[in-house]
Amino acid sequence: MSDANSGRAPPKRVTIKDVAKAADVSPMTVSNVINGKHQFVSERTRKAVEREIARLNYRVQHSARSLRVARRRSVGMIFVDDAPSFLADHFNAHVVAGLCNVLSAADHTVTVQGIRADHFNQSSIIRNFAVDGFCVVLSGLPDERSAILDSLINLDQPLVLIQEPIASPNEETCIVRQDDAAGGRLLADHLAARRVDSVLVVVPSQNWPAIDQRVAGLREGFQAAGGNVRIDVVQAKTEDFDSARAAVTTYLDHHPLPDAIVGGNDRFAIAAMSILLDRGIPVPDRVKITGFNGFEQRRYARPLVTTVISSAYELGERAGEVLLTRFEKGRFPTRELVLPVYFESGETT
Amino acid sequence: MSDANSGRAPPKRVTIKDVAKAADVSPMTVSNVINGKHQFVSERTRKAVEREIARLNYRVQHSARSLRVARRRSVGMIFVDDAPSFLADHFNAHVVAGLCNVLSAADHTVTVQGIRADHFNQSSIIRNFAVDGFCVVLSGLPDERSAILDSLINLDQPLVLIQEPIASPNEETCIVRQDDAAGGRLLADHLAARRVDSVLVVVPSQNWPAIDQRVAGLREGFQAAGGNVRIDVVQAKTEDFDSARAAVTTYLDHHPLPDAIVGGNDRFAIAAMSILLDRGIPVPDRVKITGFNGFEQRRYARPLVTTVISSAYELGERAGEVLLTRFEKGRFPTRELVLPVYFESGETT
Repeated sequence: MSDANSGRAPPKRVTIKDVAKAADVSPMTVSNVINGKHQFVSERTRKAVEREIARLNYRVQHSARSLRVARRRSVGMIFVDDAPSFLADHFNAHVVAGLCNVLSAADHTVTVQGIRADHFNQSSIIRNFAVDGFCVVLSGLPDERSAILDSLINLDQPLVLIQEPIASPNEETCIVRQDDAAGGRLLADHLAARRVDSVLVVVPSQNWPAIDQRVAGLREGFQAAGGNVRIDVVQAKTEDFDSARAAVTTYLDHHPLPDAIVGGNDRFAIAAMSILLDRGIPVPDRVKITGFNGFEQRRYARPLVTTVISSAYELGERAGEVLLTRFEKGRFPTRELVLPVYFESGETT
Repeated sequence: MSDANSGRAPPKRVTIKDVAKAADVSPMTVSNVINGKHQFVSERTRKAVEREIARLNYRVQHSARSLRVARRRSVGMIFVDDAPSFLADHFNAHVVAGLCNVLSAADHTVTVQGIRADHFNQSSIIRNFAVDGFCVVLSGLPDERSAILDSLINLDQPLVLIQEPIASPNEETCIVRQDDAAGGRLLADHLAARRVDSVLVVVPSQNWPAIDQRVAGLREGFQAAGGNVRIDVVQAKTEDFDSARAAVTTYLDHHPLPDAIVGGNDRFAIAAMSILLDRGIPVPDRVKITGFNGFEQRRYARPLVTTVISSAYELGERAGEVLLTRFEKGRFPTRELVLPVYFESGETT
């Protein structure tokens, strides 16, 4: 996106006056639109001004931007997710908690909204939200994510993408993610050291880039460890406990018992373990189990599942911090932040 | 609140013209304020008009209100909670999911926001949110809740209160709650039938009316069953798993083993059970355990905890439905909706 003008002569810096002339309004009106003073501007005028701002690629200068920030002090947290229960996902809930903590302490509000991918462009959050920036968690196939990302970039607002595997497309976008692939490699090392020859990986239906990276890291790790490990991946119908149980049951009914079951997250690991315990199969003596995330709910199940500790809360905190830096200094401190994950041994391996 | 004018002669119906005259603006300006067309009105004028609307107790007529609704199609879901991780609470997450499902299907958006009780009046949600109505979950002591409730009622917006024990204060407020006291009575019956003589109740620190009602129902149930049951209640320092474990550990170190431990929710029941299992105390043979809620995470723990199934998702759905009725027909279908809860036997009693 940042190379869109690369074929042309470098244009001189576009000013508020250029936008005002193009939209046939006064510079004050453009300033009102930029500074969020929408009560002084009709909707039609605002849209015309925003159109010209986008067309001319006008960039707000720092002083103007900070004026605007002083007015709103609000961030929109968007989950693009097909499941309306996106907040019941522990990973998402921890990201929100971290983000809200950092921004509340800096006297900013956070507005949380879930949007279905196919409703994204009609969604009122895109049109109406008076925020200084967005923090977004995308799900879905790469093509869908890419289309939504284009819409978000076109808003020309500071944008933090959580757990997105792509490179930051421009200086107004900052990626904040954790090293899920490294987590997969840590689990592979641990299992390979225990002479595991066959692994069943159980993942949720919805396309989460983070889960893909965990599985890719697992494959890399086993490959690096040598040996000849058979890895089967099954996808559950949804993301819930019963659907993970159903996927594991179907697999076990038609395949020999694997040496290990790797859950895409702790919920899936615990669901798999519950099937094994129901069938009297000893864990970890006959089948080893690993999860991912290490949130509180993991501790409800016994034996305690070996896992990789996710930095979900810290992802939210870092997202809040880079946004605050962006608001205060006019630019993100970095285009990408990658947080570490930590192996945590339990009683299932 | 609705009796504020009861000492005076009944006034004739206040019209838009009365408000316009009092605020010294045109009736069209009042109409713009009522219909949410804030882009045509300065902030100062809007506030003056809103002040006169409140002072004169002007009620928008159905036709005008529905015009406004057609513009916004949005509901604010507010959690007044000291914990920024309010969304990590499963009960809250289920309420949001139910609300979002019903309102999304009717092409409304939901904006979710957590607000600390002591920040409530400064919060931008009160000033800035362009919504058709609010759905609110309050926590805290009765006095705090009452003060916040007054602020909410003064917004003169349709208001649904989730799990609030008070009676609906006016026709613009609808209470949607579940029968937590009945849940407590069901648990008492079940335990009394099993000849339980001493009970430890473990509850979270934050003041949730629903938890108070569960405990009150439990006491009622034991009283109705006769006998002489000793009931000790301990409050954990926070709402998390470790804090519940710490509270149970301290109690057990200084008291004889109770016949049953009643968790204020399933998390607390599972935390208590984990202490007993650590100490080799058989559940349910020596100590019986009950929880409350029956969400998915309960199934992570073995033995499966006996519980009362909450209608959290349905509370969200009903809240959405009564709001839609209010938007379409100009009034709530009822002032209070009470949903049932269901006893579900597990392996711990």
